[in-house]
Amino acid sequence: MSLKMGMVGGGAGSFIGSVHRMAARLDGNIEVVAGCFSSKPEKSISLAKEYGVPRAYSSYQEMFEAESKLPEGERIDFVSVVTPTGGHYEVIMEALKYGFNIVSDKPLCITIDQAKEIYDKVKETGVEFCLTHNYTGYPCVKDAKNLIESGAIGKVIRVTVEYPQGWLMGLPEADRKSAWRFDPTKGVSFTMADIGCHAANLAEYITGMRIKDVCADLQSIIAAPLDDDGTVLLKFDSGVKGVLWASSVLSGELNGLNIRVYCEKGFIAWRQEEPNKMFVKYLDKPDEIFRPGDGSLGEFAQGFVRLPAGHPEGFIEAFGNIYDEFAKTLEAKKKGEVYKGDYPTVEDGYHLVRFINKVLESNSKQAWVSVD
Amino acid sequence: MSLKMGMVGGGAGSFIGSVHRMAARLDGNIEVVAGCFSSKPEKSISLAKEYGVPRAYSSYQEMFEAESKLPEGERIDFVSVVTPTGGHYEVIMEALKYGFNIVSDKPLCITIDQAKEIYDKVKETGVEFCLTHNYTGYPCVKDAKNLIESGAIGKVIRVTVEYPQGWLMGLPEADRKSAWRFDPTKGVSFTMADIGCHAANLAEYITGMRIKDVCADLQSIIAAPLDDDGTVLLKFDSGVKGVLWASSVLSGELNGLNIRVYCEKGFIAWRQEEPNKMFVKYLDKPDEIFRPGDGSLGEFAQGFVRLPAGHPEGFIEAFGNIYDEFAKTLEAKKKGEVYKGDYPTVEDGYHLVRFINKVLESNSKQAWVSVD
Amino acid sequence: MSLKMGMVGGGAGSFIGSVHRMAARLDGNIEVVAGCFSSKPEKSISLAKEYGVPRAYSSYQEMFEAESKLPEGERIDFVSVVTPTGGHYEVIMEALKYGFNIVSDKPLCITIDQAKEIYDKVKETGVEFCLTHNYTGYPCVKDAKNLIESGAIGKVIRVTVEYPQGWLMGLPEADRKSAWRFDPTKGVSFTMADIGCHAANLAEYITGMRIKDVCADLQSIIAAPLDDDGTVLLKFDSGVKGVLWASSVLSGELNGLNIRVYCEKGFIAWRQEEPNKMFVKYLDKPDEIFRPGDGSLGEFAQGFVRLPAGHPEGFIEAFGNIYDEFAKTLEAKKKGEVYKGDYPTVEDGYHLVRFINKVLESNSKQAWVSVD
Amino acid sequence: MSLKMGMVGGGAGSFIGSVHRMAARLDGNIEVVAGCFSSKPEKSISLAKEYGVPRAYSSYQEMFEAESKLPEGERIDFVSVVTPTGGHYEVIMEALKYGFNIVSDKPLCITIDQAKEIYDKVKETGVEFCLTHNYTGYPCVKDAKNLIESGAIGKVIRVTVEYPQGWLMGLPEADRKSAWRFDPTKGVSFTMADIGCHAANLAEYITGMRIKDVCADLQSIIAAPLDDDGTVLLKFDSGVKGVLWASSVLSGELNGLNIRVYCEKGFIAWRQEEPNKMFVKYLDKPDEIFRPGDGSLGEFAQGFVRLPAGHPEGFIEAFGNIYDEFAKTLEAKKKGEVYKGDYPTVEDGYHLVRFINKVLESNSKQAWVSVD
Repeated sequence: MSLKMGMVGGGAGSFIGSVHRMAARLDGNIEVVAGCFSSKPEKSISLAKEYGVPRAYSSYQEMFEAESKLPEGERIDFVSVVTPTGGHYEVIMEALKYGFNIVSDKPLCITIDQAKEIYDKVKETGVEFCLTHNYTGYPCVKDAKNLIESGAIGKVIRVTVEYPQGWLMGLPEADRKSAWRFDPTKGVSFTMADIGCHAANLAEYITGMRIKDVCADLQSIIAAPLDDDGTVLLKFDSGVKGVLWASSVLSGELNGLNIRVYCEKGFIAWRQEEPNKMFVKYLDKPDEIFRPGDGSLGEFAQGFVRLPAGHPEGFIEAFGNIYDEFAKTLEAKKKGEVYKGDYPTVEDGYHLVRFINKVLESNSKQAWVSVD
Repeated sequence: MSLKMGMVGGGAGSFIGSVHRMAARLDGNIEVVAGCFSSKPEKSISLAKEYGVPRAYSSYQEMFEAESKLPEGERIDFVSVVTPTGGHYEVIMEALKYGFNIVSDKPLCITIDQAKEIYDKVKETGVEFCLTHNYTGYPCVKDAKNLIESGAIGKVIRVTVEYPQGWLMGLPEADRKSAWRFDPTKGVSFTMADIGCHAANLAEYITGMRIKDVCADLQSIIAAPLDDDGTVLLKFDSGVKGVLWASSVLSGELNGLNIRVYCEKGFIAWRQEEPNKMFVKYLDKPDEIFRPGDGSLGEFAQGFVRLPAGHPEGFIEAFGNIYDEFAKTLEAKKKGEVYKGDYPTVEDGYHLVRFINKVLESNSKQAWVSVD
Repeated sequence: MSLKMGMVGGGAGSFIGSVHRMAARLDGNIEVVAGCFSSKPEKSISLAKEYGVPRAYSSYQEMFEAESKLPEGERIDFVSVVTPTGGHYEVIMEALKYGFNIVSDKPLCITIDQAKEIYDKVKETGVEFCLTHNYTGYPCVKDAKNLIESGAIGKVIRVTVEYPQGWLMGLPEADRKSAWRFDPTKGVSFTMADIGCHAANLAEYITGMRIKDVCADLQSIIAAPLDDDGTVLLKFDSGVKGVLWASSVLSGELNGLNIRVYCEKGFIAWRQEEPNKMFVKYLDKPDEIFRPGDGSLGEFAQGFVRLPAGHPEGFIEAFGNIYDEFAKTLEAKKKGEVYKGDYPTVEDGYHLVRFINKVLESNSKQAWVSVD
Repeated sequence: MSLKMGMVGGGAGSFIGSVHRMAARLDGNIEVVAGCFSSKPEKSISLAKEYGVPRAYSSYQEMFEAESKLPEGERIDFVSVVTPTGGHYEVIMEALKYGFNIVSDKPLCITIDQAKEIYDKVKETGVEFCLTHNYTGYPCVKDAKNLIESGAIGKVIRVTVEYPQGWLMGLPEADRKSAWRFDPTKGVSFTMADIGCHAANLAEYITGMRIKDVCADLQSIIAAPLDDDGTVLLKFDSGVKGVLWASSVLSGELNGLNIRVYCEKGFIAWRQEEPNKMFVKYLDKPDEIFRPGDGSLGEFAQGFVRLPAGHPEGFIEAFGNIYDEFAKTLEAKKKGEVYKGDYPTVEDGYHLVRFINKVLESNSKQAWVSVD
């Protein structure tokens, strides 16, 4: 059984649109059959052709309308929303009117009010909703979560999560000025919204805890008036403390998301740039390195590995795991079965929009602020 | 424009068949439209359905015959041969009768005579022929080649190439007994044919030199009477010396292909398990690490990168680069243009079959033997 | 010319006392000739014998008195203070009465008032004073400082410095109860005083900036009522922001002091556990790794290396560099020359005692606090 | 109790002489009391002063003669021989006449005949003899040996040992011409004698096996007519195969001695440049990293560690372990007790001189040659 996907956004120049298509197609169970890649009809058609997508639309409203009239089995099973963040709210709300299942890029939207509205509507309609915090798709991240859950290394006592990038320093000024990400009328935050939320999600996913309070110190080196670098002291709902920092202006950093989760008996360290290794260090025995395929990952995490040990999988494959779990959930639902896919949900999205906004509030007040 | 591919082999349980399909499909310019996945018609049909392949055949002869009668634009543009090595010769020779372009898994075939026959026929027919020594598809490997060619680190003075694996130690004995790779009636070598030839190809690709003489010492710890571990002293046509070793029985090793090419002014080190880093160490200045996307790779190598810096690509993506180069070559040819894709050829395949056989001969004689 | 040293503290079970002796003796220009290792005369004598130290005393007062009466060339040139921190103030003030030069372990003392008194007295007497923030003795740390100073990678824009340890989790409870470090009557802080000040000093040494404001969040998992883990948001006098965190309770961490200094054009990363590598990553060219002895370190830093490239030097050697610089300063002074040794001073000590105390104040207030 | 050492060689410009002195003095149980650092009396005296050595001699004959007449407790307990290799035979044979215990730098001497003579004389006199193959002094190397011995990872099935250096490429030609190492009248080999023998010794120490047959392919890029690079196929007395290679001309390599010992259940990897980590990788569970001080090393190996976990020890400390074991052996003997120190012996030295000479013979014959 193959699922049918319609994409909104992801046109020319969109890195993330191309990633969503490769990820969706990787395992042969999702076909990209429709797309609105541009508001100009001829442009949307030519991009659709270039991307190998049969049905092109020039507005998402048109796409939802037309697709909803197609017979089941032909019409799209879900919408993939990869527009700039500022557009998510409207596209998602419109898709929900038609009852389409949804995959949305992160963050969910801009304001807490928008997020609450989306959350309520998703709950009301009962559609499946997946937010592509793709870093939770890596097998080693899943194994880290399981290792914590197992209790084998004790309770969490501290968390350090970092997301340094440096690309903004290399971006020509002209590009910066024209980009939606840096337009303060289209978003409240640059770096915390772009990558800080990934770091928060990663920490919450692995530990099973929620960030409850934040004390932030942000700065803006290039993206003024928006933040492009900042540190956040964290308190989780469990009482555990930690620190999260993210930056887009650190020349030399690439895509350096990494986390260390410290527990009573040892700690877990994982780095996105070398994703096929999970380090576990203990108080009183040799460090361990877990890797896909060599018998070290638990059964659940190993289930997300496509290749034998030592054959590196990367970003696209991890992203594909998010899509594949969403696909399995939809497929089960179509068959009247239940499969609870392992992917971020609208609850996560709502929470993380609050996180972003409260970090900004804390920074303004130079004080601790509660997230929820 | 999209190319059409037909696959021979790669049925249930074939890791490499699945990799070939993912790699071929990754960039959206190759469709897998036909396949002979089993000699049982119903099995071939059900596998084709599982793999999302429209036309199923139960013999390669039938496939070539039927496809050749389809109109251009509908029939397959090339055949992908992923049967056990022992079957390559017959499938390839049959495909050549119909003038199909060919992608073949490595090694090309078993005996030197077979290899010569294939080589001669490919030259005679003028079809495009690609051998999937996929490790040359990694951007960092391509950059290593370019760095050597540039002369920036001087002439090559020594080569060390290793390919340690350990999976054979973990294979249940029953599986070992039933596997074609271990059947001495179906091949002259296990490890040298399986991975030693990859190591030789990698060294030759990066250095631009050919292995001329070999002095080998092989052993068989599990796969008797075939080799499963061995070291080969190398002399290249340039006079440069080196050492190649490969093993399938080294518990703890995963897919540890790695190379160090020593030149007058410094050396290059690359490891397949961490493919997105190329180390260059110099006599008298800081070591350097080259990575895709951060401005360190040359233009040619960077052209094989799909994602921004720090977003890891892996085995499937490198394999996809081989297919993509082959596709671009065929597409150009169809348009009457010339594009010389960067992928291993039938010359490489012929040479490496000689390499494998001469290594075995050297081991028997316990003496140096000439490859050509 | 050989200098003569007298040690106060560093008796049985003192790790740091033994390190000070090995470090002082490493380069053959310092003799340990006197020591007060215990308040029990016979114990002090037997320890002195074990340590190969000719003159044993049972009180520091007695030692200073007796040594001061010996002729120059025979009496000690300087005192090395390695008692528990709570004892530093009294020993140092007494040594200053006799005009002895001083090496003191860190931190300088407990309270800001004590630190000011010591600082004023050192300035008044004009003795040489060295504080063993030994991590600045590593050649790669010195090269990092020089690289920043050179301006070659632009101005500093952010600092992350971490000092995770885990040994406290492995300490038997009985030992914890009896140890001076955990006695709240003998100090205001555990972890910030023990290692947090090392992290602060390292950041200040490399960047040439001073920490001006702090916002701290500490916790106590084991060492209550003292801190054993905490994070500090930093603002430097230059306006640059950063984060420092330190912990003694992170099972699996050993002696993980590390720093990343982010500058406009790239960043420097250094880890104490692999001290012979300094990573420099740039916006748009290959990463670099600097190492002692291979031509990559600058002349100043290379001057602190004893062995050829690839022959690892470690903790004792770096500690020895602090002593050796102090010795060169004293030797020059004795000859009427001036040599400004590269080692932490009483100014550093005074500032860092303020840092420790202000971090605690910030934590109590849950607010930003000024250090000076 | 402190032992007294006399040094022969190790004068101005001798890196290894200075290392021997630092190593001998590190643990406070050996005093360097005599030395012949030059054949010119005034030079020997001034160097002795610089090195802090009380008694200077201008010939080793004079030193042995004079020292032998001193009362016990004053005269030297052992001689440390750090002359160029060509001088070892004569110095050692002379020292043996007086019954001095001996520490000698490696290799033992030049020819197999000399080695046999030394070996026989040492056995006859019963003195203690230590050969400074210092790399066996690292705690992680000792733990590797113990791990193999324990049988926990099964029998050895393959060995790869490498010793790449590059310094020769950076040596000015004038220095090369004047250096004893490159003088073919003073030795039969350059690289195999200088470092190849270290690699052989390391492999034999860890595995407990002896190299029985060799098949070598050497080359000379700079040091002609002596070898400066080469690969040796190995057969051990147990039947296990392996490969050893060493080079002095690999620009960019520093002191890259490293070994991988493959066993039935996993393998051990160790690199001299990062000596405080021992990797153990298994067939079917997480990799492990063993480090001094964190509870991962066995009791024996941990006994050679001076500092807490995470405080790096290096080359001098490992070298010091060799001296310390020799000292403990002598001290026990003086007390009429027996302590069997863990250091290379005259048997090792004799065997390794045969190894070096037989590697050269194999290279000349281009054939397998037996070592013993």
